Amino acid sequence: MSRSSASPASKPTAPKPTAPASCRGAHLICELYGAERLDDIDHVATALEEAARACGATVLDTRLHPFDENGGVTGVVLLAESHLTIHTWPEHAYAAVDVFLCGDCDPAQSLPVLQDAFAPDTLEHQTLQRGEG
Amino acid sequence: MSRSSASPASKPTAPKPTAPASCRGAHLICELYGAERLDDIDHVATALEEAARACGATVLDTRLHPFDENGGVTGVVLLAESHLTIHTWPEHAYAAVDVFLCGDCDPAQSLPVLQDAFAPDTLEHQTLQRGEG
Repeated sequence: MSRSSASPASKPTAPKPTAPASCRGAHLICELYGAERLDDIDHVATALEEAARACGATVLDTRLHPFDENGGVTGVVLLAESHLTIHTWPEHAYAAVDVFLCGDCDPAQSLPVLQDAFAPDTLEHQTLQRGEG
Repeated sequence: MSRSSASPASKPTAPKPTAPASCRGAHLICELYGAERLDDIDHVATALEEAARACGATVLDTRLHPFDENGGVTGVVLLAESHLTIHTWPEHAYAAVDVFLCGDCDPAQSLPVLQDAFAPDTLEHQTLQRGEG
């Protein structure tokens, strides 16, 4: 990972800015390897919405787009608390999933849903704290 | 950041899985502090689509949702190469932006567009490599 900051208005000694607690969030970044049902767009939609509910999040809109060339799916569930996204490559049994939730919701609550829905051999994940400078 | 892996099918000595190069991606994660025009949904949509084009990405769908209670916006631009997302809190001049691009597109090309569109005092960013185990 590279990390950098452009801060034209800040002096070197200025404290790093942060967002107020009310708009900070936790961003779960997942890689699913050896996963199944990545070409089933209805299943993907159902799984993402179930994952959102498992976190206690509120679904605003679900938009999924199928790719004819490989059967993959790209899509988003917009939430009152931020978003879930997914991008799948069924021919490689790989999917990239993000669960970004502001407030008190815990994105890790989505992991059992993702595991059950897509049965990956390996589910790598990391969590970033957003808005903390 | 915490990072962990659940790998029920792998032995401890097994190499970490990776996605094929064709579906790896770069994920730019941005925090905008002291930013402007975060309550202007048309401006946000235009800026995100311009940021996508600056990266050489192909827009599939743009979905933005306004929040009445604070004038904030949450939304996504779905791309053939993955996605851009934004979540704004105009009352705190803060926005969280993600630019996730698979293939040869460089998400850092979006940074000047974001800087120009929202004029943040500080634009923090980091880049994650997706699909590399």
